[in-house]
Amino acid sequence: MGLNVAQKLIKSHLATGTMSPGESIELVIDQTLTQDATGTLVMLEFEKLGLPKVKTELSAQYVDHNLIQSDFKNADDHLFLQSACRKYGIWFSPPGNGISHVVHMEQFGQPGKSLLGADSHTCAAGSLGMLAMGAGGLQVAMAMAGFPFALKMPRIMGVKLEGKLAPWINAKDVILEMLRRHGVKGGIGKIIEYYGPGLANLTAMQRHVIANMGQELGATASVFPADEQTKTYLQQQQRGDGFKPLCADADAQYDEHDHIDLSAIEPLIACPSSPDNVVPVREVAGQPVYQCYIGSSANPGLRDFEIPSLMVENQQVHQSVSFDINPTSRQLLEHLTQSGALGRLVHAGARLHQTGCNGCIGMGQAPATGRISLRTVPRNFPGRSGTPEDQVYLCSPETATASALSSKITDPRDLNIAYPTWQEPDEVEVNRKMLLPPSDIDIAVTLVKGPNIKTLPDFPPLPEKITGILLLKTGDNVSTDEILPAGATILPFRSNIPEISKYCFQRIDNAFYKKAKETPFDSIFILGGENYGQGSSREHAALAPRYLGVQCVIAKSLARIHRRNLINFGITPLLFSKKEDYDLLIEGHELEISHLGDQLLQGKTINIENKTTSGTVKVTHDLDSDEIKTLIAGGLLNWVRQQTND
Amino acid sequence: MGLNVAQKLIKSHLATGTMSPGESIELVIDQTLTQDATGTLVMLEFEKLGLPKVKTELSAQYVDHNLIQSDFKNADDHLFLQSACRKYGIWFSPPGNGISHVVHMEQFGQPGKSLLGADSHTCAAGSLGMLAMGAGGLQVAMAMAGFPFALKMPRIMGVKLEGKLAPWINAKDVILEMLRRHGVKGGIGKIIEYYGPGLANLTAMQRHVIANMGQELGATASVFPADEQTKTYLQQQQRGDGFKPLCADADAQYDEHDHIDLSAIEPLIACPSSPDNVVPVREVAGQPVYQCYIGSSANPGLRDFEIPSLMVENQQVHQSVSFDINPTSRQLLEHLTQSGALGRLVHAGARLHQTGCNGCIGMGQAPATGRISLRTVPRNFPGRSGTPEDQVYLCSPETATASALSSKITDPRDLNIAYPTWQEPDEVEVNRKMLLPPSDIDIAVTLVKGPNIKTLPDFPPLPEKITGILLLKTGDNVSTDEILPAGATILPFRSNIPEISKYCFQRIDNAFYKKAKETPFDSIFILGGENYGQGSSREHAALAPRYLGVQCVIAKSLARIHRRNLINFGITPLLFSKKEDYDLLIEGHELEISHLGDQLLQGKTINIENKTTSGTVKVTHDLDSDEIKTLIAGGLLNWVRQQTND
Repeated sequence: MGLNVAQKLIKSHLATGTMSPGESIELVIDQTLTQDATGTLVMLEFEKLGLPKVKTELSAQYVDHNLIQSDFKNADDHLFLQSACRKYGIWFSPPGNGISHVVHMEQFGQPGKSLLGADSHTCAAGSLGMLAMGAGGLQVAMAMAGFPFALKMPRIMGVKLEGKLAPWINAKDVILEMLRRHGVKGGIGKIIEYYGPGLANLTAMQRHVIANMGQELGATASVFPADEQTKTYLQQQQRGDGFKPLCADADAQYDEHDHIDLSAIEPLIACPSSPDNVVPVREVAGQPVYQCYIGSSANPGLRDFEIPSLMVENQQVHQSVSFDINPTSRQLLEHLTQSGALGRLVHAGARLHQTGCNGCIGMGQAPATGRISLRTVPRNFPGRSGTPEDQVYLCSPETATASALSSKITDPRDLNIAYPTWQEPDEVEVNRKMLLPPSDIDIAVTLVKGPNIKTLPDFPPLPEKITGILLLKTGDNVSTDEILPAGATILPFRSNIPEISKYCFQRIDNAFYKKAKETPFDSIFILGGENYGQGSSREHAALAPRYLGVQCVIAKSLARIHRRNLINFGITPLLFSKKEDYDLLIEGHELEISHLGDQLLQGKTINIENKTTSGTVKVTHDLDSDEIKTLIAGGLLNWVRQQTND
Repeated sequence: MGLNVAQKLIKSHLATGTMSPGESIELVIDQTLTQDATGTLVMLEFEKLGLPKVKTELSAQYVDHNLIQSDFKNADDHLFLQSACRKYGIWFSPPGNGISHVVHMEQFGQPGKSLLGADSHTCAAGSLGMLAMGAGGLQVAMAMAGFPFALKMPRIMGVKLEGKLAPWINAKDVILEMLRRHGVKGGIGKIIEYYGPGLANLTAMQRHVIANMGQELGATASVFPADEQTKTYLQQQQRGDGFKPLCADADAQYDEHDHIDLSAIEPLIACPSSPDNVVPVREVAGQPVYQCYIGSSANPGLRDFEIPSLMVENQQVHQSVSFDINPTSRQLLEHLTQSGALGRLVHAGARLHQTGCNGCIGMGQAPATGRISLRTVPRNFPGRSGTPEDQVYLCSPETATASALSSKITDPRDLNIAYPTWQEPDEVEVNRKMLLPPSDIDIAVTLVKGPNIKTLPDFPPLPEKITGILLLKTGDNVSTDEILPAGATILPFRSNIPEISKYCFQRIDNAFYKKAKETPFDSIFILGGENYGQGSSREHAALAPRYLGVQCVIAKSLARIHRRNLINFGITPLLFSKKEDYDLLIEGHELEISHLGDQLLQGKTINIENKTTSGTVKVTHDLDSDEIKTLIAGGLLNWVRQQTND
């Protein structure tokens, strides 16, 4: 039987295991990607591993998240990262170069390679025929140290594309259609592979848009073949030599199937406050908007800025609308400057921001109280914009721009103007001068640690008996933004665990930190619903709870990256055998598990005694033996250290 | 006897008083300017005055300070200001249009007019032959209500300019030379008027650079004549029709004299942490720099960006330097985009920020711990950058750019390259579309007040007897940045006095708020050295202390705007008769003043009983009768209300 692209990528990187869905496998990692909000911890972790240099083919560290320097903390982090890159042989992309996923695609993306990134949208690189996955920072540090990456062999969902996008339809509308169909849990345990005749009509950057938000489906990865469009993109980036075709065999099979007629897609919009709350734009048209926001890794390409610039040419955005433009990379900003697009946007009333992630991760551009913000970003989880009870809608740049012109939510087709004519350039100016290459000779570099950069806390092994309190019971689809928020106030503490833990679960229960500090119990239990821990890959959402004493999370289901982050930091993820048992547990219950390590090793059933109700709840787990050993050791760093000492 | 320009401006606006230095006078105000960090209070104050529309010829409200929207607070303030502008007949300049002083100069500057602004750098408009002064927000609200502006007739210091700036020398170096000579108190009680043959060689925008930082000398205003250069500037802005010449009479006299040979000026730099700590650049050359920052109202012109862009053309700034570019206005950004300057800067490694004040007021771009930042901004007060114990140097764009190329503090002449050839354009593209004009018909507008916008607290009249504690004794040149800091964390509370008061005096004594809340005394005394309250015009530096119970400030000397802010909010400013008496008072002393109002009215000597030492300190005051009545009423709003009720 022939192989599909995902299977070929896995096969060519398989270190251990067999390629049957659900089986534990390990993959060789060629490249890693870190950004500054996760990278400081990755570097502190890599430091603890004690290696002189990274062992990957290529590792790159980007500064794109914490760009607002309200005080020394973010600036100190940037210098720390730069010193770590020099010391460990990593490319360093300083502030101003742009969003990691886009710069990585421009400079380093290569068909057939594997990429592990400490950012959940790393999956965007699937657009170039790469096997690209987001992971917790510690997984990435391990990959940098040469360890293979462990996961369950995903099911491969083949999505057959046919037809061609109509005018005014953006690739964003395609992934919003996927979210409308499958929801934020629809991709869990799966790689989504796009194939079929419609592919010929999607540029590599349009594929990036689709692959990027595969993360919002919960997918392990999204993959596209490396074909003529891939080659065209690499040639545009003056890297045509790096092209290698990678396509599915003619008789390739998929574990699941879906089908999209591109020509039938219409402008869609995700309403507050979940990326899968998708309806046609016309269904919510007419509502007044406060802000129309263009940028982020979810709509990062030239066309996503050029088309809006042509839409507003010789026009004026409505004076009451904040039309926020966030260039994705230095290269793109240079191109927009030269092409006239930037001039058109600014002249029409745009507010131009610095190159980077910015408002997408709550670093500025928060909307006013109760006002509607239309954004081309990938996520609209509650409060992620920085404003409590925000009203963030996700849409295409075309829809955002049409709405900026009219000051109401507007389907761009209803502007009654011609779709602008625009062609991807054959080649763009490439400027690598602000990318600092790794050096072989800088091992003697001392890491530059400002006063806010704290060494990682140590954690004890799994105790014989866990006696604790159920301190928080959450609902379905709790995101890592709710477990540990981003935003301009909190992100600067990303390299200071004691400080950042004060914000743990703040959005769900703002007394959580106080309760955790004051509880007489040594251990804390957290209860999750479905898809617990979706969203960003930030490992702080595991590390901070562990620091506060969380020992177990019991959920109906868990998002992949967060599940692994919990294990990495010694929090045991347990699953309800019967989902209705979720109702048996109430905040304040005293829970006890004896010999958890032994129970995990011996089988799938774990007994939890409820001391408050004198009942027993039977839960289960999906941990493999390595994961169990990691938990018993108290986390991955402990486990690696044990192995090194053996 | 003929008149100089300053005297002509005063004479043409004189409402009451005589033009003898030191006499109380009142001036008619033609235009007002507010920005968002001060404007929210101004609008709340104007609301309390109860008028339907402003009575000025032109009032303009800019949003340039609080551009980082980490949550709803700043965005809500912007909407509040927009609604106030519609209601009261004020021009509104939304975020993205640029720095108030620059946009005002571009759009509204007019020779011969008076301008009062709730921003200390309002004085920059003196560059166009205007009488432009910074003031506390309440003064500006009163001016908007048609009240004349009261001040002491200043002494006029004539500075005769001769010669022509050499290549590599910026107008910034001229004002740094003035600061080197006169210090941050050298201009107190004075208007600085520039005259002489050297003027023909200074463009209006170069004059802006000099007039702007006249504030750092403590001057009431800086004035330039309206001459051919002024006309050229207005023609460039397509407003040549608004030109009216205004020059000193041939036999004009000045109260004081200075003289500068422009051709002898060399690159200067103000070392940490005062604008008058000035030395030649070569004296500190060679020190490694972390950041080189271009922008702000102190170097806002096309030349200040075009020359750096030509310096870095086909070159690369050092990879370890953060080269931060902050465009000053939408119009300038458009011009830089079209001229190619923006492309050159970005290509060479610049990090482009949004249009506005940004890092100059601690809104982002804070330097890393212990690292040197070179900035073209007007101020380097301790910690103003956002980083405690910062190392901020003030210099010209030429010096900042030369240092960005070399990564060390560098005199641009030592680059050994030719000075770039650049000519001011005859005309620039003018775009007023994002400036919202006042309307006559929107009186029915409801003010949009988000949850962080609180009505002003009311204060009681001056008590019969003040018994209080000396809670803080400060040194010389304490700035309003130290009394009430700016920065991304604190600025969002500008419309919420109870909340912002928590940061009062934080930089000097971070327990001040706690002590103020816990002291058993009703009243608090503050002791200042020389030039107490220099710097920014923010009235929060008076309002927040008053809110905490401060009743009197006793100082060796007081900065003009802050002195008036103290009076406006009912804090009595007292002066040492003998400066050595400053040493008699120690933190913790219990002080008492009986019948302060009567004492102020009866003479210049005020007796303060020191209950702790059982001694008496005799202090004095420089208050006129209106000011005393204001203090007795408990502040200006109380006084105006009393008058309205009479």
